[in-house]
Amino acid sequence: MGLLFSNNNFPSNIKWLASPTSQEWIEQAIANPIEVLIDHAHCERKAAGAAIQLMFRYLCEPGLAEKLSPLAREELEHFERVLTILIARGRYLEPLPAPPYGAELAKRIRKTEPERMLDSFLVAGLIEARSHERMSLLAIHSPDNELRALYGELLKSEARHFSLYWKLAHERYEKQLISNRLKQLAFEEAAILSELHPEPRMHS
Amino acid sequence: MGLLFSNNNFPSNIKWLASPTSQEWIEQAIANPIEVLIDHAHCERKAAGAAIQLMFRYLCEPGLAEKLSPLAREELEHFERVLTILIARGRYLEPLPAPPYGAELAKRIRKTEPERMLDSFLVAGLIEARSHERMSLLAIHSPDNELRALYGELLKSEARHFSLYWKLAHERYEKQLISNRLKQLAFEEAAILSELHPEPRMHS
Repeated sequence: MGLLFSNNNFPSNIKWLASPTSQEWIEQAIANPIEVLIDHAHCERKAAGAAIQLMFRYLCEPGLAEKLSPLAREELEHFERVLTILIARGRYLEPLPAPPYGAELAKRIRKTEPERMLDSFLVAGLIEARSHERMSLLAIHSPDNELRALYGELLKSEARHFSLYWKLAHERYEKQLISNRLKQLAFEEAAILSELHPEPRMHS
Repeated sequence: MGLLFSNNNFPSNIKWLASPTSQEWIEQAIANPIEVLIDHAHCERKAAGAAIQLMFRYLCEPGLAEKLSPLAREELEHFERVLTILIARGRYLEPLPAPPYGAELAKRIRKTEPERMLDSFLVAGLIEARSHERMSLLAIHSPDNELRALYGELLKSEARHFSLYWKLAHERYEKQLISNRLKQLAFEEAAILSELHPEPRMHS
C-alpha cells in the first residue's frame, strides 16, 4: 500500500495507486471482453469530456488550455479506435450503467479554490493511473490478440496522461501539498474500488 | 438572398447562407485582429464542445459518434493553433463577452425529436458556414501575412465541417424536409446577424 514518488515530475503508475487491482476484476474483465470494450469507449469519451470541462472552467489560466486540448484530442482518438473495433465486431456503443467510481471520486474534489483545481488534477490523474494499470493487465492477460495489442498501445498514452495531470499540479502547487493530498485521494480511490463488486467495467 | 442547393450532398458555403457578411464587419474585424483571434479561439473551443455535446446526447445513434469525434478533434486542433499565435504575440485567452448569435440560434432548435436532432445539425452547420465565409474574407482582406495564412488554411476544414453536418442530416432525414428547414434557419441566422451591431467578433 506504499505511495512513493520518483525524483522527477513523472511518477510511474504504481506510485499513484494505493492498491493493486484484484484478481477477481481481471477474471471478470477477460470473461466479458465486449462489455469491457463498450465501457472503455465510454471511459475515453468521458475522459475527453472531463479535460474539456477543466479547460473551459479555467479558460484564462495560462499554460492550461494548450495542454488539456491535446489531451482531450488524444482521448477522443482512443475513443474512435475502440469504437472501430466494436463496429468491426458488429457492435456499437450501448447505454451501460457506469459503476459509481467516477461520481464517488468527484465528490472528493473540494468546492473552493485553490483546492478545487488541485483536486481536479489529482482525481483526473488517479483515474488515468487506474486505467493505465488495468489496461496493462488486459494487455498481458487478454486471450484476444487484437485486444492485447489495443490495450498495449493505448496504455502508453495513458501513462503520459497521468504524468500530465501531475505536471499541471506541480506547476501550480507546492510539492509537499500535492504529495499529501494525492496520498489521501489515492487511499480513497482504493477504498472506493474495494467496496465495489467487480463487474466487467474499467472502473468497478 | 437566394438559397440554392447543389446536386450532390455537399452544398458549398454560399448556398447555406441567406445573406453575405457586411463591409462594416470586415472593417471592424481587420481593425481589431487580436480581439478577433481571441474570439476565434473561443469559437473553435465552443465548436468542439458542441460536437461533443451532440455526440454525448445521441451516443447510441449509429454512424454519429465516429463522425463527430474526429470533428471535435479538428476543432480542438484549430483552437490550439489560434492559441499558439496568441501566445507568440504575448497574449492569451481572455474572457470576451460573446455576441448573442449562438444563443439566439440555439433557441431555434426545436425541443422534441426527431426535429431536435435535425435542427441541431443544421444550426451547427450554419455556424460553420458563417465561420467559413468570414474566414474567407479575413484570408483575403487581413493586412497581416500570418493571419491571412492562418485563415486561409483553417477555412478548408471549416468547409468540410458544414458538409459533415449536412451529410449527417441527409443520412437521417428526407431531402425536402432538410432543405425547407435549412432555408428557414438560414433566414433566421441572417436576421439575427442583421440586428447585431458589428463588433470585432467572428459572429457579430
